[in-house]
Parts: sequence; C-alpha cells; structure tokens
Amino acid sequence: MFKYELLAHSSECKARVGRITTDHGTIETPIFMPVGTRATVKTMTPEEVKELGAQIILSNTYHLFLRPGKDIINKAGGLHKFMNWDKPILTDSGGFQVFSLSKRRKITEEGVEFRSHIDGSKQFISPEISIDMQNTLGSDIIMAFDECAPYPANRSYIEHSMMRTSRWAKRCKEFHKNTDKQALFGIVQGGMYKDLREISAKSLVDLDFPGYAVGGLSVGEPEDLMIDVLNFTTDYLPENKPRYLMGVGSPDYLFEAVQYGIDMADCVLPTRIARNGTAMTSKGKIVIKNAKYKEDFTPLDHDCDCYTCKNYSRAYIRHLFNVNEILAYRLVTIHNLHFLLNLMKGIRKSIIDDRFMEFKNNFYKNYGYEK
Amino acid sequence: MFKYELLAHSSECKARVGRITTDHGTIETPIFMPVGTRATVKTMTPEEVKELGAQIILSNTYHLFLRPGKDIINKAGGLHKFMNWDKPILTDSGGFQVFSLSKRRKITEEGVEFRSHIDGSKQFISPEISIDMQNTLGSDIIMAFDECAPYPANRSYIEHSMMRTSRWAKRCKEFHKNTDKQALFGIVQGGMYKDLREISAKSLVDLDFPGYAVGGLSVGEPEDLMIDVLNFTTDYLPENKPRYLMGVGSPDYLFEAVQYGIDMADCVLPTRIARNGTAMTSKGKIVIKNAKYKEDFTPLDHDCDCYTCKNYSRAYIRHLFNVNEILAYRLVTIHNLHFLLNLMKGIRKSIIDDRFMEFKNNFYKNYGYEK
Repeated sequence: MFKYELLAHSSECKARVGRITTDHGTIETPIFMPVGTRATVKTMTPEEVKELGAQIILSNTYHLFLRPGKDIINKAGGLHKFMNWDKPILTDSGGFQVFSLSKRRKITEEGVEFRSHIDGSKQFISPEISIDMQNTLGSDIIMAFDECAPYPANRSYIEHSMMRTSRWAKRCKEFHKNTDKQALFGIVQGGMYKDLREISAKSLVDLDFPGYAVGGLSVGEPEDLMIDVLNFTTDYLPENKPRYLMGVGSPDYLFEAVQYGIDMADCVLPTRIARNGTAMTSKGKIVIKNAKYKEDFTPLDHDCDCYTCKNYSRAYIRHLFNVNEILAYRLVTIHNLHFLLNLMKGIRKSIIDDRFMEFKNNFYKNYGYEK
Repeated sequence: MFKYELLAHSSECKARVGRITTDHGTIETPIFMPVGTRATVKTMTPEEVKELGAQIILSNTYHLFLRPGKDIINKAGGLHKFMNWDKPILTDSGGFQVFSLSKRRKITEEGVEFRSHIDGSKQFISPEISIDMQNTLGSDIIMAFDECAPYPANRSYIEHSMMRTSRWAKRCKEFHKNTDKQALFGIVQGGMYKDLREISAKSLVDLDFPGYAVGGLSVGEPEDLMIDVLNFTTDYLPENKPRYLMGVGSPDYLFEAVQYGIDMADCVLPTRIARNGTAMTSKGKIVIKNAKYKEDFTPLDHDCDCYTCKNYSRAYIRHLFNVNEILAYRLVTIHNLHFLLNLMKGIRKSIIDDRFMEFKNNFYKNYGYEK
C-alpha cells in the first residue's frame, strides 16, 4: 500500500507536513533520506540508522544491478531481507549514475548502453530493465528511469532529453507490475527552462503517479536559479502527492527545498563529508582534523545529544582520524546523520507550529549562512 | 586495587579458573583480551566490545606514545576517559613494537633509541619512560619494559637479553609510582632455553610482582616447542598470581595456553583476520570472499548467536567485502570476537565442571584440528 496525507501547511510559504504510509511503515515528511548506495548506509548497521530516527533510506539500483546483481537479491528475498532493513526503502532508477558515465554510454530511444565503472563490461538499462530490477529489489518507492541532463546544457538538448524522459516514464508505468506494494514516482526534468519544466510536470501529472520527484536540480547551477526553478516547478505538482527533490543534503538546501514545497530529499553529503572528517554543527561545519582541535576535549557540537557528542571529545575523534581508525568515520557519520534527521524533525515541528520562517532564520544565523 | 583469587583447578591439567579485581571491575579468567592498539578496538565502539563480553582490553603504549602522545592523554584524564572505556585496560610496555623495528633501533643498558615508524623521528624509550607513559595512561595492568627476543636466536644473545630484561624489570618496579591503582606485571623471557626461562622466572618472582607474563613465545617456533617451554615456565610462577601469555589468539593456542596454566592472553588475530574476511566458526575458519558463498544465505556460523549471525547471511557479508564496505569489517569483527570470548566462557565453565580436556577434544574435532 501507499498513501500520502497532507497534515499541515505553513501560512508563510509552501512548507508542509505530511505522512506517507507504506507496507514497511510510515514516514513523517518533510524527511531527509540517508543513502545506502550498495545495500548499506556506509559504516552503519541498520539498527543504528533506525535509532538516529531515519524513517526511510535510499539505495541505488545501478550499483546493485552490477553488484551483487538481480539474481542474488532475488534469491535473498529482496533488498529489505538482504540488508536487514525492515523500514521503507526508496530506490533510484539507475539513470543518474548511467548518465554520469558521460563518455561511456550511448543513449537511444530504447535505453542506454554503457560500460560498467567496475570492469568495463558492456551493460544495458532501459525503462523496463530498471523497473524490473526495482521490482526485484522490492523497494517501497521506485523511480522512473530518466535522464538527469547536465548543467549547463542548451535548450534543444534539454527539450529532447526531457521529452524522452516523459516517454520513458510512460513505459515505466506500463511495465511496473507490483503497484500495490511499490509506488512508482515520475521525475520532472527540463533543466533551467521553466516552460520545459511546465511541459514535463504536466505530462507526468497526466500519467497520475503516486508521487513526483524534481530531478536535474542541484547539478552545479547557482542557488538562486535552483530555488527559482524549484519554486516554479512545485506549483505544477498536485498538493495531494508527495514531492521529492533528488540529491540535496546540505542544511541550507534542505530549508529551501521545504520552503518551496518539497517533502523528501536525499544526498550522500552528510555521510561522505563525515568520512572526510567534516562535522555539521549548530554553529556551522568543523573540520575535525585541524590542529586546533588537538587538545579540545569538548564534543563536536555542544547542542547535540547524539551518541558521539555524549561520549567522545573532538581531541579523541581527531586522534582517530589521524591514525585512520574506522571508528572515526562511524562517529562523525552518526553525528552528521543525527544532525540532519534532527533538523528535519525541528522543521516538521516548526511547520506544525506555523513558525517555519523564524526557525529557518534562527538556524541560518547560528550556522553562519549569510541570509 | 588489584587482587587475584584462584577459584577452581582442573584435576586433569594445569587449567584454572580465577578472578582478578581492579578499580575498573573484575575479570573472570582464563580470558582473551581484544586489542585496541591505538585507543580503539578496530571498527568497534566500546559498548559493542562490552556487549560481546570483553572484560578487559589491551592497548599499546608504543603507538599511543607516538600518537596522540603522553600530553594529550594526560590532559584527557587518562586512557579510559579518552577512549570512553570504563572497564579494565592492560597496556604493554612498548618493548615488543620497539624491538620489532629491528633495523631502526639501538639498544643500550639505559634503554632503546629508535626511529618512529610514522615519520622517522628519533625517539627513546627506557624502562622509566615506559612506566611513566603507562602511569599517565592509567591502565589497570601495566607491563615491565622487556626485550622480546627473536626466534631463532643463539643462546648468548638470549641470555644477555634476558638478564637485561630482568634488570629493566627491577628499574620498572622502582620507578612505578601508582602501585595502588595499577598492577605492574613482570615478563619472563629466555627464548627456547629452559634453564634461561628458569633463571628469568626466579629473578622476577624474587621481585614479587602482582602478576607475570610469559613473553617471547609464539614468535615463529614450532607449536610443540612453544607448548614445552610454556609448560616448563609456568611451573616456576606462583599459583596465587595471574599469568599472561602474550600475543596468542588462535583457538588452539588459547586451549594449549589454558591447559598449561595461563590465565590471560591477547592477540590482534581475531580482529585482523576479520578485516581480511576470515571468520572463525565452530567448524573451522571460512574465507567469506570465496565465490562459493555468493548465494549462501545461511549465517557465518550455524551454532552462533552473535549479532552478525542472527541478522546477516554469508551472501550479504561477501557482497559487502566485494564492494569494500566498512560494515563488512564490523560484522566479521563482531563475530570473531564473540567467537573467542564465548570460547573462553566455555573453557571457564569446563574447568569448573572439571571436564576441560573433553571440551578441548570436542572443539578440536569440530574445528578440524588434527589432534
């Protein structure tokens, strides 16, 4: 089953609170989804991810398609069982990764031929193959196979690509077998061209998907442009369906996304920068490897009650990074995921209390954003 | 405080059960001590190590001496606080690591000058410096600074080295300031020469340490020789003090150690082979990366109730190793430590029930040891 309920709406902006119900549990929105690319949220056990308050994770069809492959996931009884995660999962379509292999792929109307980033072997993904793989994965939310066009790109390229993405969305919908257990989302493209975004959104809404994603944003364009296109696009998406902004995970982009009507977002950012030793804190980012933390026996973030901040000092975490200990990556990953999940919790509450803008402005002031 | 109580003795061999009491808690012996070289048991949180039943961990003075250094540990309030571990800690003296740098060190009566394995900087450790560092670390059991001689080595080298180790032991004891909180163990050396082992043991027993280690074994000599020298040596150690065999962590060596009167042992083996994908199971070792586990959806060990075996399949763990995910190292580390700690629990019970030899023989038969 799949259900979206709109529970509260800000009076100041497009921010909204809702609830998604799936076979693997409910998701309070707006939500940030930690990424478990290869059937694991890097460095973490599923129990830890759950304890941090994650209600849904994202996993990547492209990576799982190559390793361990469809056959093994099928025999394991699906992705939930394989990786020991019993809450909702969203899988992407593989499109983003395939199109990132810019010089190693060939697009036709049928699909995309590409060379594996692992062994160079020739592979092919079409809308049907992507949905078939996602049906096998058994994820609660699956994504239509789309092209995430690069930025900048000329209008005719974007138009051509966006129209094909809409045709592919239709093929995905027709092929999708498991509609009672897995909700298929369409993905709006159209680059930075508003009229193309409008055409894209309308064509997908005509197909009546249970949810919609905004793709092709946060791909290198200026923030103002991203916000402008996002704000324009969400106006064309139905109020009674969830909206997902793909690939966004910095605190400011999450605030902007919510302000302009987004319910879901994902990004590798918090976990990736964690492994490089960067912690998100209520006072901005800190690079824990810096010498100034050598004898700093305070926690990463004074305002944080995560496991890491309750038990370890900056000096200890810096030591762990200095000697390349795996616990270092774990501790900062825990902290960063807690930070974002807790932020989203605060955002949800602020919308219910109808003081989202105040909450946002206070956060920006403390975090050091100049807005 | 430091107290050893002998609680039970096998009627068949020298195996014994005891209890060590320290300021940070009690230790039921015989015990295996997981190694936390650089103030962390690799890949694990302290809570996880505790949950597995570890009663004491070992940490390495040499590594902590170089990074983060004495000053930072001192300011942190000692090693327990620095690393968030509130149970007993044993630290080695640094001797083993310094003497492993065979071409980068110069031994004098005063101590050892060596070049750091990290940056090549010139460093010096003497018995006094080692004890001073261990006093700062605040570990519950500290070790005298010794030379662990190589195998094979000629008699005159071993004799000379062993005599110096005894002189250093005396200096360690004289320098040791914190005797009410930290128990200093002497280390018997003497290579494979029984008469030298006897001299070493007697000279240390004369100094009346609260516990004794057997060093310089399991350094490449045949197993029979190791057992013979160990059996000979423990006869010269007092019944009312704990005995620690350094650097032993394979199941067979642990059984042999206990059979010949050892109470404590440590080794990086279980955690190191875990990170290379080798799991210890009741049916012997398995190399999880092997292709034959690709579609094996059973746990690492059918007879195991650890977190890993309760929740994950061999196929999933193999996938994690294939794609170099950190969770792979964590899951097999948890399993291997559980395996050894659980084995020691079984050994303790078998001694109390006075059926140690039966327990050992059954284990060897299942594990595939040819004895």
